[in-house]
Amino acid sequence: MIIIGELINGTRKEIAAAIAGRAAAEIARIARAQQEAGAHFVDCNAGTAGDKEVEDLVWLVQVVQKEVSVPLSLDSSNPAALAAALEVYTGPPPLINSVTAEPQRYAELVPLIKQAGASVVALLIDEKGMPSGAEQRVAIGKRLVGDLLAEGLEPHRIFIDPVVMPVSTDHQAASAVLASIRQLREAFPDCHITAGVSNVSFGLPNRRLLNRIFLTMCMACGLDAALVDPLDRQLMAAACAACTLAGRDEWCMNYLQAHRSGLLE
Amino acid sequence: MIIIGELINGTRKEIAAAIAGRAAAEIARIARAQQEAGAHFVDCNAGTAGDKEVEDLVWLVQVVQKEVSVPLSLDSSNPAALAAALEVYTGPPPLINSVTAEPQRYAELVPLIKQAGASVVALLIDEKGMPSGAEQRVAIGKRLVGDLLAEGLEPHRIFIDPVVMPVSTDHQAASAVLASIRQLREAFPDCHITAGVSNVSFGLPNRRLLNRIFLTMCMACGLDAALVDPLDRQLMAAACAACTLAGRDEWCMNYLQAHRSGLLE
Repeated sequence: MIIIGELINGTRKEIAAAIAGRAAAEIARIARAQQEAGAHFVDCNAGTAGDKEVEDLVWLVQVVQKEVSVPLSLDSSNPAALAAALEVYTGPPPLINSVTAEPQRYAELVPLIKQAGASVVALLIDEKGMPSGAEQRVAIGKRLVGDLLAEGLEPHRIFIDPVVMPVSTDHQAASAVLASIRQLREAFPDCHITAGVSNVSFGLPNRRLLNRIFLTMCMACGLDAALVDPLDRQLMAAACAACTLAGRDEWCMNYLQAHRSGLLE
Repeated sequence: MIIIGELINGTRKEIAAAIAGRAAAEIARIARAQQEAGAHFVDCNAGTAGDKEVEDLVWLVQVVQKEVSVPLSLDSSNPAALAAALEVYTGPPPLINSVTAEPQRYAELVPLIKQAGASVVALLIDEKGMPSGAEQRVAIGKRLVGDLLAEGLEPHRIFIDPVVMPVSTDHQAASAVLASIRQLREAFPDCHITAGVSNVSFGLPNRRLLNRIFLTMCMACGLDAALVDPLDRQLMAAACAACTLAGRDEWCMNYLQAHRSGLLE
């Protein structure tokens, strides 16, 4: 299971304040904690806009890459911010989060991805906006991933993201994602499938319960990566159990090791 | 989600002692607690053999049905014990747990099921014994459920059980069940699919973590009933969250109600 640590995101109040105040030690602390908790990528999202985002993301990437050895996930919808972040990036091949099927964004990002040897999150949004239902997600996915493969990207560099939306505003929102993961897993057995799991619980109480249960349900359908909070111990324990139950843990070695390390309490 | 309370099972030490000592008050207490915790059926398994089982199951059913208003799940591999239990049974149409594709067991049970107007667990075992892999489960399922439907049983009276085996002895054991649930759900959209979830964790530490995560993963694949411990609050909270995430909870009403009732803590 590939864990992408979600905590350094400027849409969160304390992170916004840390970025605005250039509180490098605070950002570094959160980056390090996520790596220590098992994150395979540390996501960096400045949460600002325009030129400010370019400047903020560059600062953020420089602070975080000094602190961790894992690759970063460079998170922005703005190709200019991603290009600037890649210019200062010195770590292992990063994850570009994200390309979509919107023609202009796609055209601007693909050369950057190739040049950086990066992996990429393929977010299933097209020029018509957010997808609704499983069918639309799968259609966008087949087109977008097909295009990326045709560009020569190896399947393992593509992280398909079906776009998780809150179950509080549409009670079929989560089940549509589950159905789309099942179908995308069948269509693209060698690509990764990821999700911004925490969106599912927006507007509801006990969000962490919903987040960790949704994560395991997505894993049952073929998800093998996720943007989550690696400091949420119950979520990480649930993910460990789900890996074992999904048949990805020979002799239950990882599960038993996690138990002995006290990670399942 | 249909919860079948699993606690009154004579293979558990304290229940075996209660049955042997005819400790009716103790059995009644556990039956009532399961109903109060939300069980839709209370399973009764004497855990003994031969004539002893006939006698024990009859006693057990008489004790439990006096205590609860929900139907019982009459649990035995011995058609004679099930026939005797049905003779004394006075509650709402019960669940017969279980019929298999073994010709003799099938032939003896089907007339009893029809006569009682009972629902039935269709356990995916045939004359060759326990199934291995998803393909074999689906093949047995298609044959067994096809036969039961041909007998005139309505689909909603059939609870398909794919046979859960411990992931500790075969690391693909759980994923085979997940795959078979997906395929059986597609083949039989109107039947129930259930599972003896707790078997999955046999031989491993933190069994309750594995049990509740496996339950939610099975639900993501189409499971809509389960033999579980309804007194396990974390499992019941996970099941509630999974129902909401599976699109079976309009306006998230059940989830919000459970939250307000303190059931998600």
